[in-house]
Amino acid sequence: MITIAVDAMGGDQAPRPEVEGSVLAAREFGVRILLVGQPAAVRAELAKHATPNLAIEVVPASEVITMEDHPAQAFRRKKDSSVHVAARLVQEGKADGMISAGNTGAVMTVARFLLGALSSVDRVALAAPFPNAKGGVSVLLDVGANVDSKPEHLVQFAVMGEIYHRAVFGSRRPRVGLLSIGEEESKGNELTREVNNRLKKIPVHFVGNVEGGDLFSGDVDVIVCDGFVGNIALKICEGLALQIFGLLKKALKSTLSAQLGYLFSRGAFKGLRKHIDYTEYGGAPLLGVRGVCVIGHGRSNANAIKNAIRVAAGLARARINEKIEQELTGTAVHA
Amino acid sequence: MITIAVDAMGGDQAPRPEVEGSVLAAREFGVRILLVGQPAAVRAELAKHATPNLAIEVVPASEVITMEDHPAQAFRRKKDSSVHVAARLVQEGKADGMISAGNTGAVMTVARFLLGALSSVDRVALAAPFPNAKGGVSVLLDVGANVDSKPEHLVQFAVMGEIYHRAVFGSRRPRVGLLSIGEEESKGNELTREVNNRLKKIPVHFVGNVEGGDLFSGDVDVIVCDGFVGNIALKICEGLALQIFGLLKKALKSTLSAQLGYLFSRGAFKGLRKHIDYTEYGGAPLLGVRGVCVIGHGRSNANAIKNAIRVAAGLARARINEKIEQELTGTAVHA
Repeated sequence: MITIAVDAMGGDQAPRPEVEGSVLAAREFGVRILLVGQPAAVRAELAKHATPNLAIEVVPASEVITMEDHPAQAFRRKKDSSVHVAARLVQEGKADGMISAGNTGAVMTVARFLLGALSSVDRVALAAPFPNAKGGVSVLLDVGANVDSKPEHLVQFAVMGEIYHRAVFGSRRPRVGLLSIGEEESKGNELTREVNNRLKKIPVHFVGNVEGGDLFSGDVDVIVCDGFVGNIALKICEGLALQIFGLLKKALKSTLSAQLGYLFSRGAFKGLRKHIDYTEYGGAPLLGVRGVCVIGHGRSNANAIKNAIRVAAGLARARINEKIEQELTGTAVHA
Repeated sequence: MITIAVDAMGGDQAPRPEVEGSVLAAREFGVRILLVGQPAAVRAELAKHATPNLAIEVVPASEVITMEDHPAQAFRRKKDSSVHVAARLVQEGKADGMISAGNTGAVMTVARFLLGALSSVDRVALAAPFPNAKGGVSVLLDVGANVDSKPEHLVQFAVMGEIYHRAVFGSRRPRVGLLSIGEEESKGNELTREVNNRLKKIPVHFVGNVEGGDLFSGDVDVIVCDGFVGNIALKICEGLALQIFGLLKKALKSTLSAQLGYLFSRGAFKGLRKHIDYTEYGGAPLLGVRGVCVIGHGRSNANAIKNAIRVAAGLARARINEKIEQELTGTAVHA
């Protein structure tokens, strides 16, 4: 049975959605859950659910990392945080993977230091799934773990992203693109020109340079970029979506006719929000660490937590790390 | 009287919106317009409008650069294109500025080579205005002219963007931010850490690092970045906006109730689209060239052309280049 350690104290409303999502996941996916956090708070939430036949255990952690904590400081100072304890469960083989909806920087830092990188991976990468216009999911990586990446790092991201897309989204031969500022090979900066050259030589289905709009076009499944660019891209998407929904709300309150219209179309808007909300897609895996680590948004609701557990269990079941090691050892992706 | 050379052959529906926008601008702003393009086509459009008292002249250009043309090739091979002729009018002092809704890469190439950069400017920068959540306009630069920028280039972008924001959007003391992946100084890549350091020492109102979402927050007026990052940011915004509107359309057709809702709220949606459409904000100026050059979207309608002419005339009237030279010569922004 796959065991997932769930950071019960991570999200904005912890531990409520974490506990509820864990109960749902244990019931639906038949996974074993280790709920890591302050026992009294976690047990109080757990008592609200019917859990007689579910494999859910509480693992105590005395400290909590907040969204305001500085990642490196939190790593050093809060050694009994729920994030640390969850990572240690993975490190010690007591869990196959961990999920957290906590402080992304802190979770990455703890996972990187406690779990470490696979031997063939120079830098771990955070991969963000986006719904695309063709009804599928495109994955952007790295979205925040690395800046000033070298060409070999981006090549490794391509291999890891491709394996993740196959494991979680079921594609047989994901199309891999390189994020740049024009489709021609000659377009881009020093880094992308070199990476474009290298990606042609490895066994992934490389479709060449893609542009910013291709995150949503559905013409490419895995989009590779440096973490500085990817993190800015992610934040722009969140910011613009909020801005558009804010304006929409305002526009729909502006006239009586629009207000009336809103009453009728409210269901459609809710559906749309759900479609766009990336927590629906199971959070962002930190690829390349020993073990499995999936990071959800701080706003994660129970459904998002459930989906993150599904993704973490899927990655563990697919033995993603063995596949990454095989691919990266087999192909000439190192400098 | 300010004279603006208008590339009449640039946009997707040229020369119709170009001619109509020019007529509107000549009438509203009292500027003189040189309509550059194939005389027969331009005159045929012009005949549709009442122009007896307007200062509009047609300047012939035999060639047309298309959206499919390769910028550098178009620059070398189509020397009598409407873009070349418009740029030469500025170069020779016969126009104070030019606007084009044509192939952005080609317009930038022609302007860079024919007009050249100001003596204190190492690299020209394309600046894109975005509507923000506070009802103002934030400007992102560079969005496409430069990759692999050096710290001194970004510092120059900050100075140019600040002067542009004051001249066109009337702010007295624009807040300047540096696009990065966290607000702390230590966050970012090698480039932004160095630029953060330098921006503190020059006389702009530097508010520190900002993140991707701040393009829309309204908490910062001018956002500085390398052209690779900026171009990707711009394309993501266009792509995501299209994606959200597409999903919205689909959602609103999904049920009878939603369809009914749409009928009532249609006006609100149109208003929203207009608010988001950046052609409303007068196109993107190429800052740092000798003369004034404003680039509009290929989809520009007559209103967008009119606004681009307004911006070009405003930049010329504000003597933006004199101000840029003064600021850049006066402050230690060179390496």
